[in-house]
Amino acid sequence: MTDRIVVINPNSTEAVTTAMDRALDPLRIAGGPEIVSVTNPDGPPGIECQAHVDDVSRDIRAIVRTHEAEASAFVIACFSDPGIHAARESTARPVFGIAESGLLTALALGSKAGIVAILSRSIPRHMRYVRALGLESRLAGDRAIELGVVALSDEAKTFGRMVEVGEALRDRDGADVLVLGCAGMARYRERLAEAVGIPVVDPTQAAVGMAITAIRLGRATSGVAAAAE
Amino acid sequence: MTDRIVVINPNSTEAVTTAMDRALDPLRIAGGPEIVSVTNPDGPPGIECQAHVDDVSRDIRAIVRTHEAEASAFVIACFSDPGIHAARESTARPVFGIAESGLLTALALGSKAGIVAILSRSIPRHMRYVRALGLESRLAGDRAIELGVVALSDEAKTFGRMVEVGEALRDRDGADVLVLGCAGMARYRERLAEAVGIPVVDPTQAAVGMAITAIRLGRATSGVAAAAE
Amino acid sequence: MTDRIVVINPNSTEAVTTAMDRALDPLRIAGGPEIVSVTNPDGPPGIECQAHVDDVSRDIRAIVRTHEAEASAFVIACFSDPGIHAARESTARPVFGIAESGLLTALALGSKAGIVAILSRSIPRHMRYVRALGLESRLAGDRAIELGVVALSDEAKTFGRMVEVGEALRDRDGADVLVLGCAGMARYRERLAEAVGIPVVDPTQAAVGMAITAIRLGRATSGVAAAAE
Amino acid sequence: MTDRIVVINPNSTEAVTTAMDRALDPLRIAGGPEIVSVTNPDGPPGIECQAHVDDVSRDIRAIVRTHEAEASAFVIACFSDPGIHAARESTARPVFGIAESGLLTALALGSKAGIVAILSRSIPRHMRYVRALGLESRLAGDRAIELGVVALSDEAKTFGRMVEVGEALRDRDGADVLVLGCAGMARYRERLAEAVGIPVVDPTQAAVGMAITAIRLGRATSGVAAAAE
Amino acid sequence: MTDRIVVINPNSTEAVTTAMDRALDPLRIAGGPEIVSVTNPDGPPGIECQAHVDDVSRDIRAIVRTHEAEASAFVIACFSDPGIHAARESTARPVFGIAESGLLTALALGSKAGIVAILSRSIPRHMRYVRALGLESRLAGDRAIELGVVALSDEAKTFGRMVEVGEALRDRDGADVLVLGCAGMARYRERLAEAVGIPVVDPTQAAVGMAITAIRLGRATSGVAAAAE
Amino acid sequence: MTDRIVVINPNSTEAVTTAMDRALDPLRIAGGPEIVSVTNPDGPPGIECQAHVDDVSRDIRAIVRTHEAEASAFVIACFSDPGIHAARESTARPVFGIAESGLLTALALGSKAGIVAILSRSIPRHMRYVRALGLESRLAGDRAIELGVVALSDEAKTFGRMVEVGEALRDRDGADVLVLGCAGMARYRERLAEAVGIPVVDPTQAAVGMAITAIRLGRATSGVAAAAE
Repeated sequence: MTDRIVVINPNSTEAVTTAMDRALDPLRIAGGPEIVSVTNPDGPPGIECQAHVDDVSRDIRAIVRTHEAEASAFVIACFSDPGIHAARESTARPVFGIAESGLLTALALGSKAGIVAILSRSIPRHMRYVRALGLESRLAGDRAIELGVVALSDEAKTFGRMVEVGEALRDRDGADVLVLGCAGMARYRERLAEAVGIPVVDPTQAAVGMAITAIRLGRATSGVAAAAE
Repeated sequence: MTDRIVVINPNSTEAVTTAMDRALDPLRIAGGPEIVSVTNPDGPPGIECQAHVDDVSRDIRAIVRTHEAEASAFVIACFSDPGIHAARESTARPVFGIAESGLLTALALGSKAGIVAILSRSIPRHMRYVRALGLESRLAGDRAIELGVVALSDEAKTFGRMVEVGEALRDRDGADVLVLGCAGMARYRERLAEAVGIPVVDPTQAAVGMAITAIRLGRATSGVAAAAE
Repeated sequence: MTDRIVVINPNSTEAVTTAMDRALDPLRIAGGPEIVSVTNPDGPPGIECQAHVDDVSRDIRAIVRTHEAEASAFVIACFSDPGIHAARESTARPVFGIAESGLLTALALGSKAGIVAILSRSIPRHMRYVRALGLESRLAGDRAIELGVVALSDEAKTFGRMVEVGEALRDRDGADVLVLGCAGMARYRERLAEAVGIPVVDPTQAAVGMAITAIRLGRATSGVAAAAE
Repeated sequence: MTDRIVVINPNSTEAVTTAMDRALDPLRIAGGPEIVSVTNPDGPPGIECQAHVDDVSRDIRAIVRTHEAEASAFVIACFSDPGIHAARESTARPVFGIAESGLLTALALGSKAGIVAILSRSIPRHMRYVRALGLESRLAGDRAIELGVVALSDEAKTFGRMVEVGEALRDRDGADVLVLGCAGMARYRERLAEAVGIPVVDPTQAAVGMAITAIRLGRATSGVAAAAE
Repeated sequence: MTDRIVVINPNSTEAVTTAMDRALDPLRIAGGPEIVSVTNPDGPPGIECQAHVDDVSRDIRAIVRTHEAEASAFVIACFSDPGIHAARESTARPVFGIAESGLLTALALGSKAGIVAILSRSIPRHMRYVRALGLESRLAGDRAIELGVVALSDEAKTFGRMVEVGEALRDRDGADVLVLGCAGMARYRERLAEAVGIPVVDPTQAAVGMAITAIRLGRATSGVAAAAE
Repeated sequence: MTDRIVVINPNSTEAVTTAMDRALDPLRIAGGPEIVSVTNPDGPPGIECQAHVDDVSRDIRAIVRTHEAEASAFVIACFSDPGIHAARESTARPVFGIAESGLLTALALGSKAGIVAILSRSIPRHMRYVRALGLESRLAGDRAIELGVVALSDEAKTFGRMVEVGEALRDRDGADVLVLGCAGMARYRERLAEAVGIPVVDPTQAAVGMAITAIRLGRATSGVAAAAE
């Protein structure tokens, strides 16, 4: 049977799921696991506050339960990693969060990571999470483009702001690797890396990459759910 | 053309290369990159002191140069990550160290990581590196089995010591994920995870997994060499 | 009009609410705010895993909305501070979590704080939160009595375990102040302080104390909700 | 007998004591403890250097001894917390320092705290103390208005500088809560919170609030003096 | 004119001054600065609590003033570094504290330092200072021999306890260098290093060594007093 | 027999050795150890990348072996401390690195240290080392003059850039002490301290000062080599 990675978009915006899914194509290979993206129909259009983060945790566990029989691993595709620890408790499959995976991946690519956030009000939430992860000393900075999840579809405006923020993270904060702070930014990764001249990590790609490795190594991670809580 | 990951064993012990290479089989898939392990003929039998770490840096760069034309990524397969930053300066291909990759991977699998080291004299060296990586607050502990790289081939003795050390890391230090502190321990990973009941990361597998992702995402990491120094 | 502090027990066990409420009597004074404890009828019997923590966030916001007109401040009385940041977003009243308040209060009473937890599986969750709060360097340790929230009503057994754990935190970990890691332990605080000989903080009392101060100072904290997210 | 909190102004400037005392009125309630402010007649006009900090320690202990029979708690009302640990050794009553209490209180009101200092030469002293408290990762910044303690009575000038500094802490350093770095700034708290739009903590109010809670909980803190040293 | 380093024993016990002074003989060389040890006649017999630490600050400044004309540098010879920052404000000569100098010197000799303290009640004070110095991540531990300053003259008992504590720091805490936590322990340094097999730093020697360097480099440190506060 | 300190310039530029040696004259005193500077003939003209750092480790050990019989201590005079831990393993003499010694010395002279680097590409390497040393919380910043080791001989240009960078470290980053980030900057130390008004540490002088102390104290450090690895 083919392995399957289920990538969960916790918000209800299909366009975000579609764009993010397209960015996963390079990770789809013959002989590799199937990668399936699903939208949370009960989520808000974008995860933009802590209430959204907390509330979709239950939805995510429901999606996990629905897909558990055919899934080998799960990815929660929102940069706040909503419900990650609750999901880990609820399944024996490995669960990856894109913020955690994106930051860990970035640390192998540079000395200091900068986060390109959507809204500045998400920054204290990010900072709490970066401190919880114990990764604070490797964070260069976190700056916002000040556009909501849905507004990310205005490409010219979004990309222009991303370059400005990326340059500020590089020049003012000393970042030598960037992490996109929202699953909805995936389509801009390549262009942004070219414009700013330093590696840019799409966190959904990073998490799916980690999931692929975990699946290949099978037993290696089967103790995860027990250990996670 | 097929992608190729070149995994460099910095020591000269072919048996270590062979054992470690066998552990990479689950990561070899149709459609995925070729994974080739090479031994450093000029290295010491085991990397067991800082002089070894420093001196193989030049050998590693030579191996990188030799293989650069056909390689898409490199992995340095010694838990001291010898020459990692020098290698990154010297090539446009992404370079992964197994200590860095092993620890980063472990942080997505548990709350606190424990390192199963070979010799206690390597612990201060590990600690300097863990601090340099900024990951100290996620380290539960680092304990040694007190057997040199070459002695690792005595399976019964080695495995018995690994279980003792793994249990001490779990029970006395609070580790809920273990990282093998030597490429030569790969063959024991699965059994150790079963014996100790928490996930065990083989760092060479972790680094090759990260390399596979990086290759699939192509351009994503092409800015790495420039940014690394 | 009299000020009112609404203390929310996120679990559905009335006995916990009652015991915890009784421990608040010393903070009820003529001229001071009214202190009202409410139970979350939709919560689990005890908050014992991350799923519980995430899921009661919505209930807590509902309780906040119900009481907002007559409340001057809210306290979330579970040591995981469930929904604290979401609640802060949702109301202009100050919101205090008992873990946050208990730890901050303890830091004015000793050099290193020890947490008396209920179950060892809550420890990684506590550690994530302590790191998120940036208070890790002042934590001596976190040890569990290994009894669930509901089992806390067996007084002899519970108290015996609390003394053992308190002594271990004091003697092995160097704690010189203890924080009770569950709202349901309130009744044991005084006896434990006597038995162990160091100050013991009941976190619900600590949070209500902070709320009383915030109310008296009125405007001081009216910018909180806006700032919290 | 009524409880009494004795608030000690370590400097000899009665006007500072008076202004600071007035700011404590909201904490004076029927049924609550009496709050009495005393001036250190032997102190310098303002605590503006480390020599002042060290030397008033003895005076503070003398004041503590004088008032101990009728006092239930003490507050040392200078942002350098002079003599706090020596005072704690010398009395069984709880002793609160305004810097410690102000910073701990601020951490429940925002993500990152900014200190509004009087003189820039006090900043290294503050930083040493913030590091000693282990709270460094929650400090946004510390900026000075460059006016001495006595000059704080020029209201227009002082307030103008406080707003400038508060805005710099908010906008350049990312503070979302401010702490006044001098007991003599109490009268400006409310106006500053309005002008800058984030909560502002008067540390003397914070410490008295903590003292009120400690008194109400009685025995809870009676082990403090023994534990503090 | 010959340079002179004035080493101040903040306590009034001449025997401590004499023993400590004798340990400075190896640093007295032809062509090098004169090293003069003075006792604080107004100090307590031993600095054993925070009140002692605070109160001798004024005495130390008086001694500094008395000797300033002929002194090129000062050393404060008590492991709590009493009055160090106040002394630095009061003179243009460089001032070294033995705790600061001892710890900094130890960090060039080992990976993790262990402190051999006199009394366990001094440990929270040491920990506050180690955190203030920002050196916490290099501290292995701090353990007490439980003998007061004056009792240190019972050689057999003192040395036996020092070896026990040194071995515990080495074996249980992972120290690979020790720092003597009291100027009065100087005479035991050499024997302790032999008994425990790792380097042992006498902090008074370390501070005098730093002072000698500072004097030789003259102007290098003449900006110190201004910068220190 | 006279003690001798051997100061090793890991690069092959004699002019750097000469300039650095001249700066050591104030440390040459009658009765003190002889100080001899040697150039690494096999080194690159300047240590400007990680490959240089790694590769000179072997040369440094060869120089150590050549001089071991007559040397009492060694100093590695390059701000990347190349080969320091390997050299410590290879000899029973104490070995000091100038970055380590320079930073430790600076911490006794100011609250926050600023590094005046040569090239910005060395900053990530410095940051890794500062984190490995555990000194990150005392670092104000690290800024580059953007001139290579050899170009440092253009005095007017070099000094102008050093003043600019020193002022930025002082005013923008809050440094109150500077450390020269290259052995080749020694000649500018005094002038820079005057221009910027805060102490400036020449790290080679600092390391030689530490070596002089270690030699005088003899046995004190004879356990170093064993402990270092």
